[in-house]
Amino acid sequence: MNQNELETLCINSIRTLAMDSVQKANSGHPGTAMSLAPIAHVLWSRIMNYNPDDPRWPGRDRFILSAGHACILQYSILHLTGYDLTIDDLKDFRQWESKTAGHPEYGLAPGIEVTTGPLGQGFANGVGFAMGQKFLAARYNKEGKNIFDYKIYAICSDGDLMEGISSEAGSIAGHQKLGNLIYFYDDNNITIDGNTNITFTEDVEARFRSFGWHTQTVEDVNDLDALEQAIRTAEAVEDQPSLIRVKTLIAYGSPNKINTSGAHGAPLGDDEVSATKKNLGWDPDKKFYVPDEVYDFYKKAVNDRKVKQQEWEKLFQSYQSEYADLATEYLNFTKEQYPSLKDDLPFFEPDEKGMATRNAGKKVMNAIAPHLPLLLGGAADLVESTKTEVEASGSFEPGNYGGQNIHFGIREHAMGAIVNGLTLTEGIIGYGSTFFIFTDYMRPPLRLAAIMKLRSIFVYTHDSIGLGEDGTTHQPIEQLMSMRAIPNLMNIRPADANETAQAWRVAIEHKGGPVSIVLTRQNIPVLDYQHCEGPQSLEKGAYVLKDANDVPQLILMASGSEVHLALEAQEKLASEGIQARVVSMPSWELFEKQDASYKESVFPKSIRKRISIEAGVTLGWQKYITDEGMSIGIDTFGESAPAKKLMEAFGFTADNVVKQAKQLLETADV
Amino acid sequence: MNQNELETLCINSIRTLAMDSVQKANSGHPGTAMSLAPIAHVLWSRIMNYNPDDPRWPGRDRFILSAGHACILQYSILHLTGYDLTIDDLKDFRQWESKTAGHPEYGLAPGIEVTTGPLGQGFANGVGFAMGQKFLAARYNKEGKNIFDYKIYAICSDGDLMEGISSEAGSIAGHQKLGNLIYFYDDNNITIDGNTNITFTEDVEARFRSFGWHTQTVEDVNDLDALEQAIRTAEAVEDQPSLIRVKTLIAYGSPNKINTSGAHGAPLGDDEVSATKKNLGWDPDKKFYVPDEVYDFYKKAVNDRKVKQQEWEKLFQSYQSEYADLATEYLNFTKEQYPSLKDDLPFFEPDEKGMATRNAGKKVMNAIAPHLPLLLGGAADLVESTKTEVEASGSFEPGNYGGQNIHFGIREHAMGAIVNGLTLTEGIIGYGSTFFIFTDYMRPPLRLAAIMKLRSIFVYTHDSIGLGEDGTTHQPIEQLMSMRAIPNLMNIRPADANETAQAWRVAIEHKGGPVSIVLTRQNIPVLDYQHCEGPQSLEKGAYVLKDANDVPQLILMASGSEVHLALEAQEKLASEGIQARVVSMPSWELFEKQDASYKESVFPKSIRKRISIEAGVTLGWQKYITDEGMSIGIDTFGESAPAKKLMEAFGFTADNVVKQAKQLLETADV
Repeated sequence: MNQNELETLCINSIRTLAMDSVQKANSGHPGTAMSLAPIAHVLWSRIMNYNPDDPRWPGRDRFILSAGHACILQYSILHLTGYDLTIDDLKDFRQWESKTAGHPEYGLAPGIEVTTGPLGQGFANGVGFAMGQKFLAARYNKEGKNIFDYKIYAICSDGDLMEGISSEAGSIAGHQKLGNLIYFYDDNNITIDGNTNITFTEDVEARFRSFGWHTQTVEDVNDLDALEQAIRTAEAVEDQPSLIRVKTLIAYGSPNKINTSGAHGAPLGDDEVSATKKNLGWDPDKKFYVPDEVYDFYKKAVNDRKVKQQEWEKLFQSYQSEYADLATEYLNFTKEQYPSLKDDLPFFEPDEKGMATRNAGKKVMNAIAPHLPLLLGGAADLVESTKTEVEASGSFEPGNYGGQNIHFGIREHAMGAIVNGLTLTEGIIGYGSTFFIFTDYMRPPLRLAAIMKLRSIFVYTHDSIGLGEDGTTHQPIEQLMSMRAIPNLMNIRPADANETAQAWRVAIEHKGGPVSIVLTRQNIPVLDYQHCEGPQSLEKGAYVLKDANDVPQLILMASGSEVHLALEAQEKLASEGIQARVVSMPSWELFEKQDASYKESVFPKSIRKRISIEAGVTLGWQKYITDEGMSIGIDTFGESAPAKKLMEAFGFTADNVVKQAKQLLETADV
Repeated sequence: MNQNELETLCINSIRTLAMDSVQKANSGHPGTAMSLAPIAHVLWSRIMNYNPDDPRWPGRDRFILSAGHACILQYSILHLTGYDLTIDDLKDFRQWESKTAGHPEYGLAPGIEVTTGPLGQGFANGVGFAMGQKFLAARYNKEGKNIFDYKIYAICSDGDLMEGISSEAGSIAGHQKLGNLIYFYDDNNITIDGNTNITFTEDVEARFRSFGWHTQTVEDVNDLDALEQAIRTAEAVEDQPSLIRVKTLIAYGSPNKINTSGAHGAPLGDDEVSATKKNLGWDPDKKFYVPDEVYDFYKKAVNDRKVKQQEWEKLFQSYQSEYADLATEYLNFTKEQYPSLKDDLPFFEPDEKGMATRNAGKKVMNAIAPHLPLLLGGAADLVESTKTEVEASGSFEPGNYGGQNIHFGIREHAMGAIVNGLTLTEGIIGYGSTFFIFTDYMRPPLRLAAIMKLRSIFVYTHDSIGLGEDGTTHQPIEQLMSMRAIPNLMNIRPADANETAQAWRVAIEHKGGPVSIVLTRQNIPVLDYQHCEGPQSLEKGAYVLKDANDVPQLILMASGSEVHLALEAQEKLASEGIQARVVSMPSWELFEKQDASYKESVFPKSIRKRISIEAGVTLGWQKYITDEGMSIGIDTFGESAPAKKLMEAFGFTADNVVKQAKQLLETADV
C-alpha cells in the first residue's frame, strides 16, 4: 500500500466511524464529518503539535470545531490518534453519560478545547485563544526561549460565517493582526434548508480580506498536498489571520446523499451506509472497523509529536532555571493559585454622598491588578463608562501584545466569546465589560461560559433606571432576573463601594463558573457597616446589614442601589415604632450556597412580612418574600428622564417603602 | 441671502438646536447631530417624500436613525419641517413624559419610524422595511399604478457597523438585491473610547461590496451637492442596496471639541456652545433660536411634498376603483382587521401517540395562511425543523418578492430585527422562527418588539430537553423563564396540537406586543378535552384541564409537554385515593390578564399544596405554587441523550410526580 492509499484508508476510517456512530445513535450529523475528514487527517498527521497522553500541555496547538455539529469528526480523529476515547465511546455517541455528547463538550472528551455547537461561538473563541497566545508570548517568551509558540486552527461552516459574531470577531482578529489564527471555511454550498444560494451569496473571502485577513482557496478538500500547502502558506503569513476556503461535498462517498441537505443532520440509513462503504472500498459488513495500518499510521504521527513535547519540556525546564519568577507566576496562575487579595482591597469610608459603584470598581481593579498580571480584558467601546482599565498597563495591540487592556469595539457578542477564549487559555483570567443592558447582545457566550464552568468575569455598569436620560432602550429591567435564571452563572450587584471590593475578591476566588458584577452609573452612599460584620459578608450572598432594635416585624431586602432606600425606610419605620430588619442581598447564587441555619438566621420563618426592593422585574422574588410579602420592582419598561425623577416615579422612595410596609403589616396573615 | 447661505443657515439651525437641547438637558449626544446635520437637511429638503401633517401615509419614504443616540438631530429636523414637535418639546429633551426621549421612540414623537438606540438594530430594521416595500409592491402594484414606490434611508454609525447584526442583515440585503435601501455610514473616526483606529480598521466599503452592495464615498458631508448626487446615483442602482460612506467631523463647528470623543456623549458646556455659535456666525446669546428664513425654507420644501401625497392619494383612489378587493384587503390589514380564524382552525382528534406541536403548528399555519396574505416571514435556516412555511406561497427572492417565505439564513439576530421591520410596515404581519435556544441570539430585537408593542410573531421549536441528543448546548433551560421576564412579551407554550391551533389564533388576535409560540420537537399526545371547555381556554392562559373527582387536595400545573405527565400522575394519584386537579398553563401572560375571580377559580386560595411541572428553571414558579408547593423543573443544564432517557433522568415521569405529590401532602402546612 503506497502512502496515498494509506492516507486514503485513514480518511475513510474517519468517514466510516462517523457514519457508523451516527447510524448507531440514530441521530447526528454525518455529512460534514465525511466531507471534512481530509482536513482532520492533515491537521493531526502533518500539522498540529499535540500529545494524546497529555492533552493539555501548554505548548500544544489548539483545534476548535466551530461547526460543533460535526463533532463525530473530532471524536473519530481523537480516537484514531490515541486520546482516551475508545471505540465503545464512539458506539455510545450521543447517549446518556457518554463522553461523546451531541456537540463537543469541554471537559467531557479529552482534546476538546471548547464547547461548541451554537454557531459562530467557536470562531470567536478562537480569536480569544489567539489573543491569549500572543499575550503569553509577549509576557513570557525570551530570546531563544519561545515557550508559547502555538497556533490556533478551526473549522467553520457556512452557519458560523453567517452569524454576525464571525464578522465582529473577524474584524478584531484582522485589526489585531493575529497571524497565529488559521481557519478553514467548509464551503459545501449546503445548509439545512437547501443550497446556500437561497440566502448566502456574499463573497466570503472578500469579506475577510476587508477585515485584513489573508485568504486562499483549496478547490478540492481531497487534495491533501494542496491542503497542506495552503496551511504552510497561511503559517508563513505572520501579521494576518488566515481563512482557507475549502471546497467540499457534504456526505462525500455516499452515492445517493452526496451534496444534499438531507445528509446534514440525519443518519444516512443502513442501506446508504452500506452503499457508501462499498463505494469507498470498505467491507459493508464491518462496523466501527479500523484497519491496523490506520492505527499504525497515526501512532507514528503521534510519536513524532511526543518528541516535540519532550523538546518543549526541556525548553521549559531551562526557562524555569533562568526565569524562575516568571515560570512560577505562570504555573501558579495555570493552577488558579492567586495571591490572596484581602489585604489589598481598598476600604472606603462611610460617606453619604458616596460614589458610583462603577467608580469604586475602577479603584478596586487597579488595587488588585498588580497581583493579577494575567488579568486580560477590556470593554466594548465603553471603558470611559464602565471604568474597567488596568491603568498601569497599556493597550493590547500589534507591537504591544503584552498590554492588558483590549479594545473590543462595539462588539459585545464577540467580546463575550473572546473572553471565554482568553479564560480557556490556561493561566489567563479573561474579563469583559459593557452596559448591563447589552448582556442581551451576549447571552450565548454567557451561557457557554456557564456550561463550561469558566472563570470569565463580566463587569456590567449602568445597572438600572438609575442611569437616567438614556431611557427605555438603555435601562435594564429584566436583565438581572434573566441572568439569575442561567445555571452556574454567579451574579453580584453590590450595594456600595465596599461591597464592590468584595465582589471583585469573590469573583477572583470563585471557581466553577462565570461571575457578573453589576454596578451603578450613579453615585450611591458608602455604607456604614457598624451594625454588621462588614462588607465581607457579601460572600454569603445576603446578610443582615442592619437589624431592628427589637424583634423585627418585617424584613426589607434589597440589592445594589436600593439597599440605601431600605435603610432610609427602616429609620422612618422605627420612628413610627415599626421594627424592620434590612437585608443586603447582592447575590442570590452566593446565598443559595449557604447552609440552612445561616439562611434561617437571615430570613427566619417566623418573619413572613417581607418586602423586596429592586429596580427590576419582580418575577422570582416570591422565593424570598413568602406568600405574605410583596415586591417593589418594575414590571414595565423604563423611561427617559433624570435618574432622581425616575426613581421617584417608579416608586423607589423611602416614603413608598414605608407606605407599602405599613399596608403589608395591616393585611391579615395568609 | 443666496441659496447656499440659506441652506447653511438651515443646517446651522439644526446644529444649534441640537447643542441647546443637549445643554439644557445636561445630557445627550451633541457631536454627531452637529456633524450629520447636512444629511438630515438634504434628505428632508431635496430627497424624501413625507408629510408632517400625516406622518404615516403609506407612500412616504422611511427614515431610520440607526445611530439612535443622535436623536436630537432627528427631533430638530422634525421640528423644523413642521411635525408636531415644538420648541418646547426640544426644551424638554430627555425629560419625564416628554416626546423627545433619550433615544428615538416609535409612537412617542411623530415621524419616528422605529425605536433605535441599541446599535445595529435600526440597520437591520431597515432591511425589514425594504423587504416589506418589495413585498407590498409585488402584491399590489399594477401597471401604471405603483402605489408602493418608496425608499428607505438610514444613518448608521461606526457602532452600527461594528455590531455583527449589520453583517447578517447586510448579507441578506445584498442577496435580496434591495435597491430601495440607501444607507449613510457616518465615518467620523471617533467612538467613545477614542479614535476608531484602536479597534475598527477594516475596509467597510469592501465589506459591503462583498455582500453585493453598491458603495460610494462623499469626502465632505458639508458638500450638499455631492451628497445629493450620491443619493441620486444610489437611487438609480435598482438591484443593489447602497452604502454611502460620508466623511464627517464630530461636533462640526465647535472650535475646541470638533473631532474629539468628548463631544460624543456629553454636553459641550455653556462656554463651548457659545464659542461654537460664534464660530457658526450665530448670536451666542440666542438659545433655541430659529431664523424665520429657515422655517420658511422648510415650509416650501414640505409644501412640494404635500403635493406628492395628494398625487399619491389620487393614484390610490383610482387604484381602489380598479382593484377594489386588493385595496380593501390592504386597508383592512393596515387597520389590523383580520378575518376571524375560529372556523378555519383545524381540530385534532384525541390521540395517545399524538404529534409534535411543531408539526401541528405547520398544519395550523397553512390552514389560516389563505386568510392572511400579508403574513410574511420565515426561518433562520431551520424551516425543515420549525415547519413554518406557507406552502401555497413561494420563496421571497429577487424576481419573486411576492413570496411569503423568507430564507433568513443562520442569522437569528438579523431575523428578529427584520421581522420587526416587516411588522412596522403597515399591513404586514411579520414572523420568524428558529430553535428556542437561539432566542439567546435575538434578545435585543425581542425586547425592542416588546418596547414598541409590535405584533411580531416568533415561533420557537425544540423547546426543552425533549429535543434529545443535540444535548446541552441546544437544550433550552432558562429560556422560557427569561422570556417571561420581558415586559409586554406574550409567551405561549401549548400542551398539544389543539392548544397550538389556539396559540396561533391568539397570536393573530393579540394587540399590544409580540407573541412567542414555543413548540416541541417530539411527539406528544393530542388531549381529550371532554373534561373542560376545550382548547380555546388557552386564551385564558391557564385553565382546569381535568379536575379531581372530589375536592382537590392538590393542584398539578404544567405547560407544554409536561401537561401529559400531570394527567398521568393525576390518574395514578386517584387510584391511591388522592384528589388532584390538573391545570394546563400555556401562558403566564394571558393568565395574568384574567380577573381575580377567574384566577381564584383555577388556583383557589384553599388549595395550597401545588406542584408546577415544567422542563425548565424553577425560578419564578413560586408565584403560583405558594409557600406550600414545590416545583419539578431543571436548575442545571441539559445533557446529550435520547429524549425519553433525559425526561426520566431529570425526573419528568409520572412516578416522580406521584412521589413528590405524596411527600408534599405529608408535609405540614406552613
